[in-house]
Amino acid sequence: MKVCKFGGTSVASAQQIKKVAAILKADPSRKIVVVSAPGKRFDDDVKVTDMLIRLSQAALCNEDVEGYLSEVLDRYAQIAIGLDLGQAILDIIELDLRNRLESDKGNPGLFFDQLKASGEDNLAKLVAVYLTSIGLHAEYINPKDAGLLVTDFSQRVQALPESNNRLSALKDKATITVFPGFFGYTSKGELRTFERGGSDITGSILAAAVKAELYENFTDVDCVFVANPRIIENPEEIHKMTYREMRELSYAGFAVLHDEALMPAFKESVPVCIKNTNNPLAPGTMIVAEREHSFRPVTGISADSGFSTLFVSKYLMNREIGFGRKLLEILEDEKISFEHTPSGIDNISVILRSHQLNTEIEHRIVHRVKTELHADEVNIQSNFSMVVLVGEGMRNATGLAARATAAISRTGANIEMINQGSSEVSLVFGVLKQDETKILKELYKEFFSSVLVQ
Amino acid sequence: MKVCKFGGTSVASAQQIKKVAAILKADPSRKIVVVSAPGKRFDDDVKVTDMLIRLSQAALCNEDVEGYLSEVLDRYAQIAIGLDLGQAILDIIELDLRNRLESDKGNPGLFFDQLKASGEDNLAKLVAVYLTSIGLHAEYINPKDAGLLVTDFSQRVQALPESNNRLSALKDKATITVFPGFFGYTSKGELRTFERGGSDITGSILAAAVKAELYENFTDVDCVFVANPRIIENPEEIHKMTYREMRELSYAGFAVLHDEALMPAFKESVPVCIKNTNNPLAPGTMIVAEREHSFRPVTGISADSGFSTLFVSKYLMNREIGFGRKLLEILEDEKISFEHTPSGIDNISVILRSHQLNTEIEHRIVHRVKTELHADEVNIQSNFSMVVLVGEGMRNATGLAARATAAISRTGANIEMINQGSSEVSLVFGVLKQDETKILKELYKEFFSSVLVQ
Repeated sequence: MKVCKFGGTSVASAQQIKKVAAILKADPSRKIVVVSAPGKRFDDDVKVTDMLIRLSQAALCNEDVEGYLSEVLDRYAQIAIGLDLGQAILDIIELDLRNRLESDKGNPGLFFDQLKASGEDNLAKLVAVYLTSIGLHAEYINPKDAGLLVTDFSQRVQALPESNNRLSALKDKATITVFPGFFGYTSKGELRTFERGGSDITGSILAAAVKAELYENFTDVDCVFVANPRIIENPEEIHKMTYREMRELSYAGFAVLHDEALMPAFKESVPVCIKNTNNPLAPGTMIVAEREHSFRPVTGISADSGFSTLFVSKYLMNREIGFGRKLLEILEDEKISFEHTPSGIDNISVILRSHQLNTEIEHRIVHRVKTELHADEVNIQSNFSMVVLVGEGMRNATGLAARATAAISRTGANIEMINQGSSEVSLVFGVLKQDETKILKELYKEFFSSVLVQ
Repeated sequence: MKVCKFGGTSVASAQQIKKVAAILKADPSRKIVVVSAPGKRFDDDVKVTDMLIRLSQAALCNEDVEGYLSEVLDRYAQIAIGLDLGQAILDIIELDLRNRLESDKGNPGLFFDQLKASGEDNLAKLVAVYLTSIGLHAEYINPKDAGLLVTDFSQRVQALPESNNRLSALKDKATITVFPGFFGYTSKGELRTFERGGSDITGSILAAAVKAELYENFTDVDCVFVANPRIIENPEEIHKMTYREMRELSYAGFAVLHDEALMPAFKESVPVCIKNTNNPLAPGTMIVAEREHSFRPVTGISADSGFSTLFVSKYLMNREIGFGRKLLEILEDEKISFEHTPSGIDNISVILRSHQLNTEIEHRIVHRVKTELHADEVNIQSNFSMVVLVGEGMRNATGLAARATAAISRTGANIEMINQGSSEVSLVFGVLKQDETKILKELYKEFFSSVLVQ
């Protein structure tokens, strides 16, 4: 059997949901369907999840919620009408939303989760009704009944391993299971949502639990490209890549799959396929444990901006046992995670995502490092981008760093940081944000276009 | 005034000490002389410090010490005879050594330090007697009387800042001060030695305390070379470099100065000159705060072997706040310092000096990282070398990494690690030890020889 997950644009309208039904009809082994909340139908459209966030904010502030509520209900109504469904499902959805709005607001985080999760939950109910209406045997199931258990409120939301056993029962169902993505329940019965994009995680967890032959992740692109198509015109397509390559690429700008979504599938060796709801016959991109060698060492190039650097220098730092640990402890106190820590002889830089910082936090960190670690120099700089080359073939490719650095130097840009040495399948360059696009283009030319003329 | 430090080979024999006297005579501003213990006169010779270590080991084990003692006394006797000194100074040295051998053995560390330090201390007394005998006004001074205070026994030996004030009185002396290198006294009056090569530190501390116009460090080479002359035939000489360049080069194999010896001079902006006792008219290498730009971005290339890598991988590691800190804490528990920590997306490598490891420690670290951090993969590999390119001109040299990586790839060697991004004046490559020499040669060709034919 196959598990299929449909993203927000794939279920954004009645027309899109008809495509989903056609995809399910075309292959009877597609037995478990995970749905997101309705996403954007056009560029300026509002996602249902964003409407729900506004609705829950209003409710928490005791503002009038009716306007926000009808906005949400209207989206479902448009979909139901387009699918020739009756009023019954819309009544169910309205009652559900009103119940959620009446629920306990004592813990705002849990209240938010309740409202946000309704986007997926109610769409799953609607899709099950629609599939049944066109003659497919389909059944909505709630994650609580199915046994998708997640960690308690104080921790980062993650599925608990004991979910696996209970969820595996889904494989014995004769009907198509329609499962809402994005959330699960704690052992106390509280609803908690994963991070945004978390429907990918739900799909992967289910695929692993039922040991599916394939986890199909339907989105709105034909495949994964070797570089961002918004920057590189008509980039090459990736037809097959390893879990590891996908994981490394997802680090910097490859927002194809949520980065926690690969692990469950990987652990049970369930291959993942990225496919297009709007062009389901395209082969898509297969993500597997191992792939045959290609003649290209680099599989993909990604880039992401929004990085900052904390620079610390202190004479004889590397003789001082505990210096690095104390530095990281200060960041930990501020609940800041870091990406890389390139170091010179008497200095170290900590590269982290800028969204974790603000002026107050920066001042506090600089002050603590100066006074507690007696550092000679401390400063924080921002506006860095990370450019990542990824490929299983890089492992043994002598001269790859030379080709990459030569390409970057042809653009006239300075390399602020190079990180190579831990992962064998990636090479990370830190550059100024302003240089990111031209570097990406030149690297693409070096590792992809140039092959065509050879 | 100038502070001159003479290394072990510069005071290894009567003939060498005569050269020292000539150097002092040639420039009356050379008012403070720091001496090492007599070093090697020829390749297979034994340094006095090594003789003293054997002597103190024998004493601690209650073995007969007379053989070892007369070996030491014999070296001083040979020197004294060569310098036409009488028996008086040899009696002083013998009495001093016998007193040290009788001192308290309750703390073996302090007992060792007592004996080791006698090498410098007694040579300083001898040199003062000799200088006086040839008509120079010279006076031996003991670091305790001069006020060279160091940290207590439980800490790493370092000079205390309060030494500065007391040592500065040396600048008012009319005579030449002969000062033994390598040791100081704690506030409790206990003698403690610096690390080996620590006479360099003593000289730098004195130069800073008296705000000398120059700190001359006399060794047995004409200058610092851009690369190791044992590997590169007739390498270029460095005539001027910055403190920072010297510091970065000293990290990997440039054993010209002890790496703690630059800071005191640097802090007081005392320029340092590396000179040759056997060729004092050669200009030597000046180490200064700033130097004019040269047409070469790279000032020197150094390389050192004996590095190991602890590799740790764990899915979503960079989301886990505290992971890096906990990893470094395990190393800290083992009292292990580290050099670099290159990291990929879900993995980190800790590069450290191999001499800190043994099979037992390695097993313990791997086991703790696996069990306490729940890492997916942990292993330790050794036999790595670090190759470091250093130069103030590298700061703005676009394309430098490209030239360096291209040179390395021409050798066919793989680059195991690249570290750039913290220090602006160095670029570190991790390579297999077996590739070190050919890489060094190719980098020399790229950044030095090639200039000649341009």
